Amino acid sequence: MNQTQLDDLLTQALPFWGTLPPEEQHLLRDTSVPSTIPKGTITHRADQDCRGIMLILTGQLRAYIVSEEGREVTLYRVRAGETCVMSSSCLMDAIVFDVLIESIEETQVLTLPATALSPLANRRPEIELFLYKTASERFSDIMWTVQQILFMGMDRRTAIFLWDEYTRGGEVISMTHEEVARYIGSAREVVTKVLKYFAQEGIVSLRRGKITILDKVKLRKLAG
Amino acid sequence: MNQTQLDDLLTQALPFWGTLPPEEQHLLRDTSVPSTIPKGTITHRADQDCRGIMLILTGQLRAYIVSEEGREVTLYRVRAGETCVMSSSCLMDAIVFDVLIESIEETQVLTLPATALSPLANRRPEIELFLYKTASERFSDIMWTVQQILFMGMDRRTAIFLWDEYTRGGEVISMTHEEVARYIGSAREVVTKVLKYFAQEGIVSLRRGKITILDKVKLRKLAG
Repeated sequence: MNQTQLDDLLTQALPFWGTLPPEEQHLLRDTSVPSTIPKGTITHRADQDCRGIMLILTGQLRAYIVSEEGREVTLYRVRAGETCVMSSSCLMDAIVFDVLIESIEETQVLTLPATALSPLANRRPEIELFLYKTASERFSDIMWTVQQILFMGMDRRTAIFLWDEYTRGGEVISMTHEEVARYIGSAREVVTKVLKYFAQEGIVSLRRGKITILDKVKLRKLAG
Repeated sequence: MNQTQLDDLLTQALPFWGTLPPEEQHLLRDTSVPSTIPKGTITHRADQDCRGIMLILTGQLRAYIVSEEGREVTLYRVRAGETCVMSSSCLMDAIVFDVLIESIEETQVLTLPATALSPLANRRPEIELFLYKTASERFSDIMWTVQQILFMGMDRRTAIFLWDEYTRGGEVISMTHEEVARYIGSAREVVTKVLKYFAQEGIVSLRRGKITILDKVKLRKLAG
């Protein structure tokens, strides 16, 4: 990435960029680190580390929580063009819980390190506002997930998930039942049962590690 | 409340108060409205209204969500001395979900109306920062609730709830099983089953609309 591309990216991703004086822009630009995260890497784990803000260039991250017994629930995903601020929770003292963040696929990110951001954020409410505002957007996603988990039947949640995946990547969804279960916060056995019922109804066909959508009209109806 | 008391209250409750010029302090002070909310009143409902910031003087509010079938889950409570900002969600465009807010007991509040706050918040990032930061603190409570609901056994959740109530109000908890179920996000039948088991173990005694704690050591152990 050349200097102009980097500037364009930062201007677009960070609403406070234009309010910073040139020397602070220089500082953030010079300390920013591009990196490629291999698929399946946990990039943020509780209080262990505080990377900073991650701008996602390609690929996808997921934020999730995990129970003592190892059960996982995916809370939201961060996609290319979006910003992950939960990896800088040490800059937000009002947030006292923590999530894990994992790369779902190979993901290229530009990281603005917390060490460089921290002294600026203390001086400029605009930066802190950006962090909390972006976090609040994610909380809206989390609330949606929570409402689905608390209130919705498993067949409908599975249908909504498959429909979302279909609209993003086409008819063939390369996922195991275990993976689907993790995304919708359920158990593998339950997802298998629902998918078998869907297959019986001619909505999907199932092969090892693959779910193919056959009847979009029925699926959409189930998703509500 | 006289002028000095009002000033003290606003200085203490609002971290941005000192940064406002005198004329903006006057405006907020003059438009603030004290009121008494009777027990059981729903003071905020989805997008219906946008009151503003509520400073809780006495009493207690709860924020909750409700499913299409009418099932309720309490997300958090706001107590005397705390501030409720979710009643001003129209000032926070990054928050796209909504909660209901109900007074658990007779509650005295001082409201800073959204109509007066809105033009100031547009000019001053400190005000917006206060709103999002306070909302983020509540999200931390919500995440705690969600983790309990998703990951914890019902007996432990019930025990934690009873222990919390005990430490706040003493051995006798005046609540129906239905109400307990609402607070911990479960069904009445499940709570009744758990409470009967607790009674059998000599941890509580049950009477209509009343749960009395008999064995604090055991209860605390169950709560973990």
